[in-house]
Amino acid sequence: MSSTPPAPTAGRPRSGGTRRLPAATAREEILDAAAELFAQRGYAATSTRLIAEAVGIRQASLYYHFANKEQILAELLEATVRPSLTYAEELSTQDLDPAAALQELVRYDVGVLLGARWNIGILYALPEIATEPFTRFRQEREQLRHAYRHLAAAASPGAANPDLTGDLVFGLVESVIGMRRDLTTLPPADELSATVAAAALRLAG
Amino acid sequence: MSSTPPAPTAGRPRSGGTRRLPAATAREEILDAAAELFAQRGYAATSTRLIAEAVGIRQASLYYHFANKEQILAELLEATVRPSLTYAEELSTQDLDPAAALQELVRYDVGVLLGARWNIGILYALPEIATEPFTRFRQEREQLRHAYRHLAAAASPGAANPDLTGDLVFGLVESVIGMRRDLTTLPPADELSATVAAAALRLAG
Repeated sequence: MSSTPPAPTAGRPRSGGTRRLPAATAREEILDAAAELFAQRGYAATSTRLIAEAVGIRQASLYYHFANKEQILAELLEATVRPSLTYAEELSTQDLDPAAALQELVRYDVGVLLGARWNIGILYALPEIATEPFTRFRQEREQLRHAYRHLAAAASPGAANPDLTGDLVFGLVESVIGMRRDLTTLPPADELSATVAAAALRLAG
Repeated sequence: MSSTPPAPTAGRPRSGGTRRLPAATAREEILDAAAELFAQRGYAATSTRLIAEAVGIRQASLYYHFANKEQILAELLEATVRPSLTYAEELSTQDLDPAAALQELVRYDVGVLLGARWNIGILYALPEIATEPFTRFRQEREQLRHAYRHLAAAASPGAANPDLTGDLVFGLVESVIGMRRDLTTLPPADELSATVAAAALRLAG
């Protein structure tokens, strides 16, 4: 029965409270808070009001940075594929053996999926992803799929269905999203990335 | 400006209309309609009222068969893992080479995931799955994961981290859920099952 105000809820600092990410911009804080809420409560159950509260800003300030919830999710999703897509383009300009390039792309891509603070890839299956605000994400993810298909075909020229081999490697890479969700302990990210890359090479034959 | 009543909406027959599944029980029709709505509109956006409407029954009749929406989803999810779990137990009683048993389980499991009328596996990532009504589903899926770990370890006794190899095979199998969602055309189910099974064996080394 004390008159002390309640302590701030862990992870949900209010205005003037602790910053979530010490060196982040407001925009980055919004993305981070939204990612946590989307991944833990679900996308449908998370409102922009709740995101603003978690950051400790007014909802109006959130709308200064993002037009709506879709735009926040789109940016988070694009961040799960764009670095790997850029890296695939870089690899294609180098004079690498296709198997080595495939192994390197898998290693990098798994690192991106494991390295994000929140496991946003679990939202790939949302029905909303089929709608317009997510067109760019869908296109970039398809481009990444095609990079895998291209490398898998080059790495095993005799394969009966090289596109399918690329799709299976792509699926193997994204399976770390489910592992991160389901397993209580995972190997360190660099070890797991290397293991998946070696497994992808064996898979591609 | 005709007085003819509107034609029933395709796929949503009302009471007295066409049955969705000619030889199905009411319970099976409810499961089928719910699976379609969950997979296409999303779980949060689907109410028991909407499911009852799609079947062409009263909501009260739906509650005669299922206590709530969670129970319907739990039953649908369990149907994606239980047949493969039963099959894994059958395989373990046979005197099979571990690699042959692994290949056979992958082939069967991929067939189950591709053979279901609706791609219910895309709901594995729902945050709700962590709650109580889905305990049995989570347990059965973990048992299936352990069957893969066990077979992968037996198939490649020299592997550095056999549990991880089993997890990657499990992830590869479930990646057909994403392929079914993302690709407009897939090879026939028996061909794709055999391809994934062969890829899993290469992956396991």
